Amino acid sequence: MTSDTNDSDPETSETACFEAGVKFGALYHQFAGTPVSPDSAASLARAMEESIENQPFCQSVTVDVLTEKLEEEIDHGYTELTGRFMEVEVVVEQDGVEVVASMAMEDGYPLMEVESVRE
Amino acid sequence: MTSDTNDSDPETSETACFEAGVKFGALYHQFAGTPVSPDSAASLARAMEESIENQPFCQSVTVDVLTEKLEEEIDHGYTELTGRFMEVEVVVEQDGVEVVASMAMEDGYPLMEVESVRE
Amino acid sequence: MTSDTNDSDPETSETACFEAGVKFGALYHQFAGTPVSPDSAASLARAMEESIENQPFCQSVTVDVLTEKLEEEIDHGYTELTGRFMEVEVVVEQDGVEVVASMAMEDGYPLMEVESVRE
Amino acid sequence: MTSDTNDSDPETSETACFEAGVKFGALYHQFAGTPVSPDSAASLARAMEESIENQPFCQSVTVDVLTEKLEEEIDHGYTELTGRFMEVEVVVEQDGVEVVASMAMEDGYPLMEVESVRE
Repeated sequence: MTSDTNDSDPETSETACFEAGVKFGALYHQFAGTPVSPDSAASLARAMEESIENQPFCQSVTVDVLTEKLEEEIDHGYTELTGRFMEVEVVVEQDGVEVVASMAMEDGYPLMEVESVRE
Repeated sequence: MTSDTNDSDPETSETACFEAGVKFGALYHQFAGTPVSPDSAASLARAMEESIENQPFCQSVTVDVLTEKLEEEIDHGYTELTGRFMEVEVVVEQDGVEVVASMAMEDGYPLMEVESVRE
Repeated sequence: MTSDTNDSDPETSETACFEAGVKFGALYHQFAGTPVSPDSAASLARAMEESIENQPFCQSVTVDVLTEKLEEEIDHGYTELTGRFMEVEVVVEQDGVEVVASMAMEDGYPLMEVESVRE
Repeated sequence: MTSDTNDSDPETSETACFEAGVKFGALYHQFAGTPVSPDSAASLARAMEESIENQPFCQSVTVDVLTEKLEEEIDHGYTELTGRFMEVEVVVEQDGVEVVASMAMEDGYPLMEVESVRE
């Protein structure tokens, strides 16, 4: 990384992290609120993975819907999907930089974060 | 139908049609905007069907993503789901009344309508 | 209502109820999951009203975001909009039939229902 | 940037870019598909700004709905919000790093990109 330190243009590692963030925001806000039950969790997880993998620079999306947690909290047969019921990993690759980011509950909040940036 | 004509309380056939409408509005606005390609269309259609079938009184949801139309219009590998790319049928049953409703393009607009009401 | 009882074609009162249902499903699933705080509740409520009022046959939409309830439940500055935090009334008019429908919490579930159908 | 080059832990500038990406993905996929007309564009833009500004590290969100473009393309009184009808700027600040990112149409596609990263 030889860029001029006064330069505010983003590095590739920064734009790759931006791209990873876009995928997380998209996945979460496209699908939050979807009716979900233990029986329909698998098809929803698959659709989330395959739809977001369409986006630019997206290598893979892995969605784990927490069906045990769903079963505990459901009392009308289904509920609405929210961060409490899923764990997600996204891998983005842009111009030789790979970013791995994840989402899981932390302190009652669905925390999205960058796990690693590798060139 | 023996209700007092001055009565504004809804008939069962009317509440069943209301329920069918809720399913269409939910399906459309939950999933419109989802990234979709010919390869990911099947998993998205399945998730739409199974998620909306969770809702009360919903007997079945059938979603047909029009992959040929998708292929024609895509030029960046994927596009966003909108009414132009799908046909949907929903069957609702409430207290012995069955409502079949559908969505398809008509005159450039995704028309949702009640096909039949049967007691 | 003088239609042939063998006829499964919908009555106007039934299609008007279907339209009211579409508005509720649309409103709920378009906006569920939106980040909301007591300070931003008013602009979100206004956008929900004005956007759904664009839809066919929709006379008026009234959204009341329950800011006291929001304040009680928020512990990270904001939360995601869900049925627990709003009350909604929709009025639809189609070919001389007016349908009033509403949504409010009942028994822990955001119940959408037809209040009245008037010709 | 003096971090060990073997270290794959993200820099603050990288996590700040990730956060900016989350805001864009959230904004786009929460609101894409919303019914919008020239008359309702202003309230929708305001709700988009205020809702996303609730998210962590988000300094400001500016949404410009392109009402002239809306007017040109509408033929049923309203349409669905999509990237073609808006320009967005998001400013994120995390631990002394400011990221400015924007979205506008480029080559028929709503391009989201990092404009600047400043420490």
